[in-house]
Amino acid sequence: MIKSKKSIHGLPVYQPGKPLEEVRRELGLERIIKLASNENPFGSSKAVWKAIEQGKDSLQLYPEGSAPDLREKVAEHLEVDPRRLIFGNGSDEIVQMIASTYLEPDTEAVMADLTFPRYETVTKIEGAIPIQVPLKEGTHDLEGMLAVITEKTRVVWICNPNNPTGTIVGREELESFLDQVPDHVLTVLDEAYAEYVTDSSYPDSLSLLDYNPNIVVLRTFSKIYGLAALRVGFGVAHPDVVTELNRVRDPFNLNRLAQLAASAAVEDQTFVFYCRNQNESGRKQITGRLDQLGLFHYPSHGNFILFDTGFPANDVFQFLLHRGVITRSGEGLGFPTFLRVTIGSKDENEAFLKELESFLEEHKC
Amino acid sequence: MIKSKKSIHGLPVYQPGKPLEEVRRELGLERIIKLASNENPFGSSKAVWKAIEQGKDSLQLYPEGSAPDLREKVAEHLEVDPRRLIFGNGSDEIVQMIASTYLEPDTEAVMADLTFPRYETVTKIEGAIPIQVPLKEGTHDLEGMLAVITEKTRVVWICNPNNPTGTIVGREELESFLDQVPDHVLTVLDEAYAEYVTDSSYPDSLSLLDYNPNIVVLRTFSKIYGLAALRVGFGVAHPDVVTELNRVRDPFNLNRLAQLAASAAVEDQTFVFYCRNQNESGRKQITGRLDQLGLFHYPSHGNFILFDTGFPANDVFQFLLHRGVITRSGEGLGFPTFLRVTIGSKDENEAFLKELESFLEEHKC
Repeated sequence: MIKSKKSIHGLPVYQPGKPLEEVRRELGLERIIKLASNENPFGSSKAVWKAIEQGKDSLQLYPEGSAPDLREKVAEHLEVDPRRLIFGNGSDEIVQMIASTYLEPDTEAVMADLTFPRYETVTKIEGAIPIQVPLKEGTHDLEGMLAVITEKTRVVWICNPNNPTGTIVGREELESFLDQVPDHVLTVLDEAYAEYVTDSSYPDSLSLLDYNPNIVVLRTFSKIYGLAALRVGFGVAHPDVVTELNRVRDPFNLNRLAQLAASAAVEDQTFVFYCRNQNESGRKQITGRLDQLGLFHYPSHGNFILFDTGFPANDVFQFLLHRGVITRSGEGLGFPTFLRVTIGSKDENEAFLKELESFLEEHKC
Repeated sequence: MIKSKKSIHGLPVYQPGKPLEEVRRELGLERIIKLASNENPFGSSKAVWKAIEQGKDSLQLYPEGSAPDLREKVAEHLEVDPRRLIFGNGSDEIVQMIASTYLEPDTEAVMADLTFPRYETVTKIEGAIPIQVPLKEGTHDLEGMLAVITEKTRVVWICNPNNPTGTIVGREELESFLDQVPDHVLTVLDEAYAEYVTDSSYPDSLSLLDYNPNIVVLRTFSKIYGLAALRVGFGVAHPDVVTELNRVRDPFNLNRLAQLAASAAVEDQTFVFYCRNQNESGRKQITGRLDQLGLFHYPSHGNFILFDTGFPANDVFQFLLHRGVITRSGEGLGFPTFLRVTIGSKDENEAFLKELESFLEEHKC
């Protein structure tokens, strides 16, 4: 049997979760609330389906790889040069393209120890070495990350807000960090949850691009735009970096219907405004109750909250699951007594909190 | 400015073609016939759009990475174990995953010199060395390919039917080749056009998988199924090979609407039958006329024909373009006097032949 290359030996094979329908059938539940994958509880803009329908008669035609219409609309919305944009089949694909472009055996990539796991995986796939710097109070330790940069470092991954802790690094510390990062290192700012952030210290990373060519900012349509099903993400970077990334991009990577959907979604900023506001209320709703219950949580800046249940996470997860509330156990995320819960609609949050309180009630000493 | 890794320096950046609408506007043309990208002139199964509409209310939900429903339906249609299947964002993504899994610096991959260009690109992206074996009369030279296999070879790419020549390698020569390929080499049989083949010598590659674990067969929904817009392809391989490929697969690589569409498409084999028959007629229609005109063409087994115009390809291409018929110039394909034309509907083929005859009429000595 042919052998795969050494660097991918031992990489975990993704284990798919059970379909919602299967959970429903197995547990005999009528109501299931999914607060597990940081999806948008309000769906997506009403303009999206109409846009998708425009593709009905073109299913047999390859999409335009350069996504010209979507590019123009995103450029206009963000007020950036369209040549600074590169689109992917989800921002996950851009993460892979960055690794493929800049990492190779005998190079290193710096990242937090508890962050979005794809950074480590794509680094290993390239045969490069992941250097993991422990979070400090749930937050990226930028000084610590600076300290481990060497001649071999090619990429620093910063997830801001960080998944799964929800914390952010602020403008001043980020700028100070970037000032000290050597010229041979690309800093990736993964801002999948940027549109949810309301804290005024959050960096305006796009403005940094004007004078620093060694940054890639990642954004996605999977979160606040509610298009996770369609896989659209993008990077914003210096045009020369975009050119390099385009060398490894599959020419037809972006599904035609996905392009239509995202083009409509970015034009409906009213929907984005609504979701951000609802999320802010939901965040207060949940964190307020967690505070009342005396449960520690990290300061949340995204559409999810990581909190300490005080019990083995899988036990709480299973309890909630059997009552129809799917959350994410911290067990697999490096936080064995924590749950990560997506901020849902007001009713979903209330249902989650009620079941959480039932668990605590049943298990208190 | 940060440097990309050496192996991708000089790789071509994909230059997107002009949108159809732009061509129409610029040239002031009413009618445009696109016979350039081997797309299906008959669209896709009528069942597809209804299936896509089932996803209307789930746009905010991540797709299931394992594509369980599509997997089951494809497995049933092909009569293979579902664990033998891996799906990609187009079979292009599987090509990339194979390279990423098996190739690395100081390894080699063998391919024809004039074939689907992604094999060379993904090989170079991994820092591996492409070993290109000249076609023999437009056909893969399997003996020549066998002769260049070394200890360093990891992958052999065979495009069958070959793009752009349309030729096939037959069952006997393929089996003889596979018997001699050493155990450390994976043979990839890219069968994007398999469903168009009517020649009885074409290998039943799926049956080979039963006793040879070192094969990956690639298929796509972009050609006869008419879903190029949606990017769905898959590989069929030994379950252990599938496991290795899954290590590098992005967990959410397959768009939810694309899964729904492909599931419906594979169930409509009547549509596939119709398209194959129409393509067969169109092939005779075009090759018959090319023969009358005395123009050489390779034996076509896909939904396209590569033929020698006897003139600089770009001149003929431009002539046809200005008359509203888009073909593919052989200039960029290694055949500087050839055109590659997709077999269209009867009327489209007739329009193309008429304009081709006009060109020859105008330019004959």
